[in-house]
Amino acid sequence: MRQAIALGQRGLGRVWPNPAVGCVIVKGGRILARGWTQPGGRPHAEAMALAACDARGATVYVSLEPCAHHGKTPPCSEALITAGVARVVTALTDPDPRVAGRGHAMLRAAGIDVVEGVEADAAHAANAGFLLRVTQNRPFVTLKLALTLDGRIATASGESRWITGPEARRMVHAMRARHDAVLVGAGTARADDPDLRVRGLGVGHQPVRVVALPQLDLDTDSRLGRTARDAPVWVLHGPQTTAERVAAWQGTGARALACPVAQGGQGLDPAAMMQALAGQGLTRVFCEGGGMLAASLLRAGLVDQMVVFSAGRLIGADGRAGLGALGLTRLEDAPRFRLMQVQPVGGDVMQVWTRAG
Amino acid sequence: MRQAIALGQRGLGRVWPNPAVGCVIVKGGRILARGWTQPGGRPHAEAMALAACDARGATVYVSLEPCAHHGKTPPCSEALITAGVARVVTALTDPDPRVAGRGHAMLRAAGIDVVEGVEADAAHAANAGFLLRVTQNRPFVTLKLALTLDGRIATASGESRWITGPEARRMVHAMRARHDAVLVGAGTARADDPDLRVRGLGVGHQPVRVVALPQLDLDTDSRLGRTARDAPVWVLHGPQTTAERVAAWQGTGARALACPVAQGGQGLDPAAMMQALAGQGLTRVFCEGGGMLAASLLRAGLVDQMVVFSAGRLIGADGRAGLGALGLTRLEDAPRFRLMQVQPVGGDVMQVWTRAG
Ligand SMILES: NC(=O)c1ccc[n+]([C@@H]2O[C@H](COP(=O)([O-])OP(=O)(O)OC[C@H]3O[C@@H](n4cnc5c(N)ncnc54)[C@H](OP(=O)(O)O)[C@@H]3O)[C@@H](O)[C@H]2O)c1
Ligand SMILES: NC(=O)c1ccc[n+]([C@@H]2O[C@H](COP(=O)([O-])OP(=O)(O)OC[C@H]3O[C@@H](n4cnc5c(N)ncnc54)[C@H](OP(=O)(O)O)[C@@H]3O)[C@@H](O)[C@H]2O)c1
Repeated sequence: MRQAIALGQRGLGRVWPNPAVGCVIVKGGRILARGWTQPGGRPHAEAMALAACDARGATVYVSLEPCAHHGKTPPCSEALITAGVARVVTALTDPDPRVAGRGHAMLRAAGIDVVEGVEADAAHAANAGFLLRVTQNRPFVTLKLALTLDGRIATASGESRWITGPEARRMVHAMRARHDAVLVGAGTARADDPDLRVRGLGVGHQPVRVVALPQLDLDTDSRLGRTARDAPVWVLHGPQTTAERVAAWQGTGARALACPVAQGGQGLDPAAMMQALAGQGLTRVFCEGGGMLAASLLRAGLVDQMVVFSAGRLIGADGRAGLGALGLTRLEDAPRFRLMQVQPVGGDVMQVWTRAG
Repeated sequence: MRQAIALGQRGLGRVWPNPAVGCVIVKGGRILARGWTQPGGRPHAEAMALAACDARGATVYVSLEPCAHHGKTPPCSEALITAGVARVVTALTDPDPRVAGRGHAMLRAAGIDVVEGVEADAAHAANAGFLLRVTQNRPFVTLKLALTLDGRIATASGESRWITGPEARRMVHAMRARHDAVLVGAGTARADDPDLRVRGLGVGHQPVRVVALPQLDLDTDSRLGRTARDAPVWVLHGPQTTAERVAAWQGTGARALACPVAQGGQGLDPAAMMQALAGQGLTRVFCEGGGMLAASLLRAGLVDQMVVFSAGRLIGADGRAGLGALGLTRLEDAPRFRLMQVQPVGGDVMQVWTRAG
């Protein structure tokens, strides 16, 4: 099962709106075939593995309940029955209402031995994005911060380029590739004119580039506007912008998604933004700042994982903070994270923290 | 030699004003004896090792040039000659003007085979405090910061206790024990009424507790004042304070050291403070904040090593920064550090960085 879960991870960032599932078919102690959800979400892991062997009498390990509904292809449960497998071991029930236990039931009804819940925690973590999309209508959100040791990103005058080194930046590109979308705030889009594509890794598939752009006031001649036909760009805008701007951005090839503004009026409502993205099928979003957008996501309790790159520099309290104001009144309310990983990356340190409680 | 250097480290924090030296005596491939500088700085490593064996014809590895001057005891070079050793291998020349090559010369004049400069870099790093005291008249300074992931230590309202967990705090006590002194600013002394002694490690020897206290305006009934007879307390004060306050602090058992104020008048001059401490024999100082004093030491280029504990919390830009203003105009001038070590400590992350350039 661990191998099935690990195989599934290969699909991360490339299979949305589907889950990144892995499948291993075993018979007589030998592995007959492996499969994982293919780019675009099809074929499914089971279909790929079944196509590669004669699975009669075999045991099939699959990291999520096989699907039970007729989509573009017949359901995997049916395919497993047709292939004559003896036993199916799964990690999770698929919460998708079109499945939700019916895959397991179909298999059992066909006389197949079904074992559920094996390595459920690991599979849950590996598919957190898909599970959040289906159960909470929001994607899994990773927030990246690249900071000096004292939490700064720029001097008072705004000088900020190259806080972290090339190895950390390469790592960021690899992380982008494992998410369905990269998200930045309007301030970052205007200040940095970023490209946000995955570069230098030989990756064909590009994540969607999303900008939280309430007034759509970013030049359509920006890098994002100019490249919107080369890789997807989605602009999240508020109700106050003009139809003209919406049309101009759509004219670049970008998708424009309307969102309500936040209560109090500071930008778009963060929960509504995430809902809009999940509504389009996104399961994993990589937020690269800036500090205001990051603070807004944290205040709303929408950050599931933090990746912090620390550079061996100090800028001091008069420098620009990498994270905006959280408006806490009590230390107890400070968002809390649990350490998952820490390692040197080039001359910097990378820390991965996961939301705690 | 590596073993000699490692043995020497046992003395760190307890041998000032002397260096923490290690010594290994070897004959016919067997280790006859080991020694290291004893608490208080005597006996020296060589004396300890020589006392434990018959060193006739042996090779002596010692991490620093043996002393050549008559102090409270006869010089180690003389003792090595008397013991009839055949060969002495050292890592460093002792820059103390009373030695400065004369130890090596004495040994050679007695017909002993002397090899110098073995593992010099490692020995230099291990004795950085002593070497800085002798050559630059200042101690080695370690700055500790315990911060949230975004570089904060408290909410806007000042709530700050327990940013890091008990394991990190225990680690801080172990670090205190390996330094000659612990240093804090007046703001921290007034706000936290800290004790600053090493607790919970079964350590007998206590580092000197130093406070940068320009006006001496800290209650003598504070924890530091009340415990000044149990473990040393030194108060660094400016020229503006009254003789009465000096007398009151001396009355607690503390040592009062006068320092000039900084140019511009923000507290005491950091270089002068370090000079005053080196003048009293300190070789290793552990600064535990607060943010203003830390910034002042960094601005003056006096921080040799940074230990950063990161807690898995976020407070946001409206919280209180852990490091004060550095007044940088260019990012290029931001103090730069090189990563030495990074590891999880309880639920926190510890990073050790050393000054780069
Ligand atoms: N070192 C790094 O890793 C790094 C990474 C990213 C950014 N940066 C720097 O950070 C700076 C930009 O950061 P920033 O904090 O000023 O801006 P930001 O967070 O990138 O963008 C803030 C803007 O996003 C829009 N927005 C929409 N919904 C929002 C919401 N719920 N919460 C907050 N904002 C929302 C608003 O646009 P409107 O103003 O149009 O209403 C708001 O002003 C740039 O200088 C950039 O170079 C550094
Ligand atoms: N989380 C942590 O790890 C941690 C650690 C330490 C402190 N803290 C917190 O930090 C706060 C205190 O920090 P702070 O930054 O306000 O004060 P601070 O750095 O502890 O002390 C500043 C004071 O030290 C004196 N001083 C003397 N020479 C100085 C110099 N060269 N540069 C700067 N100051 C010099 C001045 O005293 P006068 O005002 O008398 O002139 C100055 O106001 C407290 O709330 C404490 O709880 C937290």
